[in-house]
Amino acid sequence: MKPTGPLPPEFAGQDRLTIGGLSVGALIGRAGSTPCFVYDMAIVRARIARLRAAMPDGLDVHYAIKANPHPDLLAAIAPLVDGLDVASAGELHRALSVKPATAISFAGPGKRDAELEAAIRAGATLNAESAGEVRRALAVAERIGVPAHIAVRVNPDFELRGSGMRMGGRASPFGVDAEQVPALVRAIIDGGALWQGFHVYAGSQSLDADALGDTMAGVIALAARLADAVGTAPPLVNLGGGFGIPYFAGDVPLDIERIGRRLADALNQRPEILGNSRFAIELGRWLVGECGVYLTRIIDVKQSQGEIFYVVDGGLHHQLAASGNFGTVVRRNYPVALADRMQAAGDVTASVVGCLCTPLDRLADRVALPPAEEGDVVALFLAGAYGATASPSAFLGHPPAPEILIDG
Amino acid sequence: MKPTGPLPPEFAGQDRLTIGGLSVGALIGRAGSTPCFVYDMAIVRARIARLRAAMPDGLDVHYAIKANPHPDLLAAIAPLVDGLDVASAGELHRALSVKPATAISFAGPGKRDAELEAAIRAGATLNAESAGEVRRALAVAERIGVPAHIAVRVNPDFELRGSGMRMGGRASPFGVDAEQVPALVRAIIDGGALWQGFHVYAGSQSLDADALGDTMAGVIALAARLADAVGTAPPLVNLGGGFGIPYFAGDVPLDIERIGRRLADALNQRPEILGNSRFAIELGRWLVGECGVYLTRIIDVKQSQGEIFYVVDGGLHHQLAASGNFGTVVRRNYPVALADRMQAAGDVTASVVGCLCTPLDRLADRVALPPAEEGDVVALFLAGAYGATASPSAFLGHPPAPEILIDG
Repeated sequence: MKPTGPLPPEFAGQDRLTIGGLSVGALIGRAGSTPCFVYDMAIVRARIARLRAAMPDGLDVHYAIKANPHPDLLAAIAPLVDGLDVASAGELHRALSVKPATAISFAGPGKRDAELEAAIRAGATLNAESAGEVRRALAVAERIGVPAHIAVRVNPDFELRGSGMRMGGRASPFGVDAEQVPALVRAIIDGGALWQGFHVYAGSQSLDADALGDTMAGVIALAARLADAVGTAPPLVNLGGGFGIPYFAGDVPLDIERIGRRLADALNQRPEILGNSRFAIELGRWLVGECGVYLTRIIDVKQSQGEIFYVVDGGLHHQLAASGNFGTVVRRNYPVALADRMQAAGDVTASVVGCLCTPLDRLADRVALPPAEEGDVVALFLAGAYGATASPSAFLGHPPAPEILIDG
Repeated sequence: MKPTGPLPPEFAGQDRLTIGGLSVGALIGRAGSTPCFVYDMAIVRARIARLRAAMPDGLDVHYAIKANPHPDLLAAIAPLVDGLDVASAGELHRALSVKPATAISFAGPGKRDAELEAAIRAGATLNAESAGEVRRALAVAERIGVPAHIAVRVNPDFELRGSGMRMGGRASPFGVDAEQVPALVRAIIDGGALWQGFHVYAGSQSLDADALGDTMAGVIALAARLADAVGTAPPLVNLGGGFGIPYFAGDVPLDIERIGRRLADALNQRPEILGNSRFAIELGRWLVGECGVYLTRIIDVKQSQGEIFYVVDGGLHHQLAASGNFGTVVRRNYPVALADRMQAAGDVTASVVGCLCTPLDRLADRVALPPAEEGDVVALFLAGAYGATASPSAFLGHPPAPEILIDG
């Protein structure tokens, strides 16, 4: 028997799962079928309210829409945050439908000229990843006669400790090595662009508040050093994010109040050159990961060589990360439950396997669950971020999973 | 510097890449843009011809369309093979457009009632994965008044040695444990269905001809034991597949002539009860993997902390497996080249990274490549199987990659 991650607190005490006050039957009826994704906007609102309370006054909160770009969710989040961070022209287009361009920034190491042009025409900020990108952006801006808004993404000379994915302190396709940044900022200003400041992203999925606090303090210090070298204050310093959520057994929720205190201290003590700069944090997973539940129905209960398999109508084509096949080395179990008896004793050691004809399609590996039968619904939690869009939806020709937002 | 896998022989000697006689410029023009997938049907035809020559007379060859269900490729392959194996109602629908139902079989552990009904109405064979599925299939058949064609997928009591993914010799969501098979076959026959025989799939991506030969001999012996227990000969024994292709440095192409000799011996010595049975092998990757090339253009060449990055306009959203994030534990490099100077000295140690804003998006890690600049096209080989449809195409909102088939 293998452990599962902890249920999000909003669901942990339930016996029959409800999301946004609706029963699983009602939710599936609304979605139209299983498997489906259900997103509870009340959870997102609560996360954002808690974050606002924990963070220093005046800190901007950005939503990185790559975590979940579902149109309804995006429309509901947009008024609650100060900015949207996008990673493609496609995401830019979605963001512009719900937020003014001045509140949108575009990061990503391989922006095509057409993408640069779309951002410049709209007036969104390009987080430039290289000198080459700045050169191309300036050329596009000159060609179309619209000034570019450009921030510089900095590859920091330190990493986020305890991060699921390290993105600093090493050679990186992301951002510009710190020592090359001042000259590049001057080239941006001299090239007639509107310099927007710095963007730093040092890692992701960290549950260590002190590591995140250290990183943010480090980013502030780095931004000050770079600003001194440039001789101009950055309008905005995007401190990045990397706030994790507890996916696996033993994971402890992030102490964001502690991060807030650490960040307040760092901002209060910031060097004078940053005195009038704005600061932002950029979150995706932490804002939306726990709002989502993937509901999938048991098609077959089978026994093989003494092991029990709950075969469901969903699979890794919708929830790749839960199968352990996306960015993880060791497969571990996400939180999972039978939707209509979440508190029942886990008397059966069962694997929840998807409907795909591949051994990779295992959504839960030898976990304790109540006895189940065909027709029962399995709830797989933490499906709000990097779920539907981060999975190979066309694999094996099954239909996509409907996604619904429950709001109020 | 890290090694790459070997180029497929059709491309290994080229200096300027051509596919099906067309230049990269012509191919991209036809596809409409980079990144794109190009499939060379001549390579598939040659693989099938070699396979037919190597395998015993009368052996059926099936194509497992999950490997690559592109409509043009599927239409071109269908006349060259004896059967199509599908894994969903969506794949069934595609297969029925190019092949009669009698040549189609449907495997997969989580078939819904609607999928069973579609297969039964069409007259395709269900490879039943459990007693529960047989019960549901018989109920559907009775309800709609159409007899079901049912084969039994057997979970063998041995595994394919050296397999990339083991699918036998253990508890499995796939198939029915061997000892339960005879009773299930009798239930199928007694239930009024048309029993089609056995299906066994013991593993995939093996490069060991002797292991594959042993496995096929083992499947034949197992089928004979089961047929004896049933008291009836199976019309068809699907021996499975699992033929691998060389992805990584050190991989040696599979000796299929050796497999053919081994299989001929096993069939010649087969027990009498299988005397009139047909036999099939089911291949996906081996038939189409090497026919495909993913072409992606360099957007940026950047240096960070002394390392060189070729940033391309493609990425893991199209070629997840090449990034090492799908079913592999240790990341290794697929074969890769600069399309217009494949024989040039690899004087640069460069990583080819995709355009996605995630560190997972690395298509080649510190490989020897010639110097390159913006606009150069990178060719990533072995993109014919488990590429476009096995990747999270919606991730980060970039457009899908066009796919084109070059045929004659």
